[in-house]
Amino acid sequence: MAAEPLGEFELIARFFTRPVPPGRQDIALAVGDDCALLQPGPGEQWAVSTDTLLEGIHFLPTVDPADLGHKALAVNLSDLAACGATPRCCFLALALPRVDEGWLQSFSGGFLAMADAHGCVLAGGDTTRSPQGVVITVTVMGVVPRGQALLRSGARPGDDIWVSGNLGDAAWGLALRRGEASADAAGARSAIERLERPQPRVGLGLALRGVASGAIDVSDGLLGDLGHILERSRVGARILWSRVPRSDGLRRRPDAEQLRWALQGGDDYELLFTAPAQGRAAVEAAAGAAGVVVTRIGEITPTGGLVLLDAAGGPMDTAPRAFDHFRP
Amino acid sequence: MAAEPLGEFELIARFFTRPVPPGRQDIALAVGDDCALLQPGPGEQWAVSTDTLLEGIHFLPTVDPADLGHKALAVNLSDLAACGATPRCCFLALALPRVDEGWLQSFSGGFLAMADAHGCVLAGGDTTRSPQGVVITVTVMGVVPRGQALLRSGARPGDDIWVSGNLGDAAWGLALRRGEASADAAGARSAIERLERPQPRVGLGLALRGVASGAIDVSDGLLGDLGHILERSRVGARILWSRVPRSDGLRRRPDAEQLRWALQGGDDYELLFTAPAQGRAAVEAAAGAAGVVVTRIGEITPTGGLVLLDAAGGPMDTAPRAFDHFRP
Repeated sequence: MAAEPLGEFELIARFFTRPVPPGRQDIALAVGDDCALLQPGPGEQWAVSTDTLLEGIHFLPTVDPADLGHKALAVNLSDLAACGATPRCCFLALALPRVDEGWLQSFSGGFLAMADAHGCVLAGGDTTRSPQGVVITVTVMGVVPRGQALLRSGARPGDDIWVSGNLGDAAWGLALRRGEASADAAGARSAIERLERPQPRVGLGLALRGVASGAIDVSDGLLGDLGHILERSRVGARILWSRVPRSDGLRRRPDAEQLRWALQGGDDYELLFTAPAQGRAAVEAAAGAAGVVVTRIGEITPTGGLVLLDAAGGPMDTAPRAFDHFRP
Repeated sequence: MAAEPLGEFELIARFFTRPVPPGRQDIALAVGDDCALLQPGPGEQWAVSTDTLLEGIHFLPTVDPADLGHKALAVNLSDLAACGATPRCCFLALALPRVDEGWLQSFSGGFLAMADAHGCVLAGGDTTRSPQGVVITVTVMGVVPRGQALLRSGARPGDDIWVSGNLGDAAWGLALRRGEASADAAGARSAIERLERPQPRVGLGLALRGVASGAIDVSDGLLGDLGHILERSRVGARILWSRVPRSDGLRRRPDAEQLRWALQGGDDYELLFTAPAQGRAAVEAAAGAAGVVVTRIGEITPTGGLVLLDAAGGPMDTAPRAFDHFRP
């Protein structure tokens, strides 16, 4: 039963090569040549983003490969969502210690299911042997009408600050996976689902075009990612801690855990966005159309940095930083 | 002197963030937001390719980081060259065990010099900590007039087979770096230069639009990469070993080394292309315009696979395979 191991090219052909769906004139050529060939429609811009997941840093070696495939694309689609772009295609660079057909079957299944759910054609990539762990780099491309992308630089003083969904569950899930936290069975299931199968808010991002003034996805933690908006928009912000949306399960955890996970936990992949105060009905309508709950958590100020307020309106002395790969 | 280590965002700002050059309307937004925003001119297609370099597989830990930066982009530009595309922008995903400012200064210097030499704007990317070695994934984007890309699928029976430059020196250089081969000082310098500072044949690829019928870059070895053309074009080929271009230094090595390095060595980043026999003058003119030597090494046949002929016209029994990351 010692079949010859699959080679690099068979691996691509077997697990990652499919015909371009009919009607996709924007993908003139996908997998199989030196480059993919793409053409946007008139008046469109390509939005492009790239993200790497490394074994031991972004995922544990024990993760279900189907979940890993799902997440590798989901975290990239989340960047398109934050720009209000419609996903179109992606490129997958995969470095593997060995060829494990069962692993590849699961991984490609999870990846391609997420791709199909968002009309995102796998248009190219690279496979290579990795001396150590698995390394996955995905580049995604989407389109926006020219000039309509949601940017980090668009927040203005007086704008409301909104966030979709709940924050902190993914960080709780990571603590659970590491054996550093506890939860009841339902809470654990839901927290780990948030960690391992994040849902990019693509529909919300599209619905917010022309409605939101600025946007980012929460990948490094609320405070850090809001910091990017403040820096690019040259403004400050006030956030009400009591309004930061958390799941019922997380609200039963000690305060210190709630603060840490919801404010600096990361891996949430919710959208954090700003919109003029007179546009609240439009924001609610966009969220309703996308089937996503959004919560108003504060406001943009002209200056003063990022201030977190407690229920009594007093400033909280916690100033956690965003997750930074190069800082402990 | 224990300065606080550079964080992820400072690292990007300091080593990799520069303004988009004036006049580059195709790059509406580069580094700094969730996505880059790109718009091609009318009638253009984007050509996109991605390649990963891993420490221990594609480069030795002792490599000069400036050369590594050069090569990480060069091998990707080589894919654009093989499509006849004009480089426009690139995305860099960099995973590093630690922040070493000297290393980053050299690496980004080598990378950005190669980018500048080809008008290729660094438009985005990702930095992350790697638990083990350095991992570099680059995605490059270029443009071609619609329908004019050079493809692997365009070779036709009777076409000449051409290759640019010399083959095999990079593999010789790798053997030298590993202490598995010898060379005189001049030969060693030149072979290692070919390994560590490959020059993508971008100008030749552009000049071959409308002239070549099919093309690929030689990254995995002549025979393996020609095999990709044969497979995609559904044709065969005859190659004359005596015509396969080799440097004077390599021609002084034993036959077995010449065969192995020139036919299956890889890392050459020359262009392998086909063109109708009546277009020989046009090929020579294109090569002359690009300042690159090209050599006619064989012809495309209707069927019969890939046949290698010795000086007497007899088939050679060597049938080396392309470099394959998952096969020993």
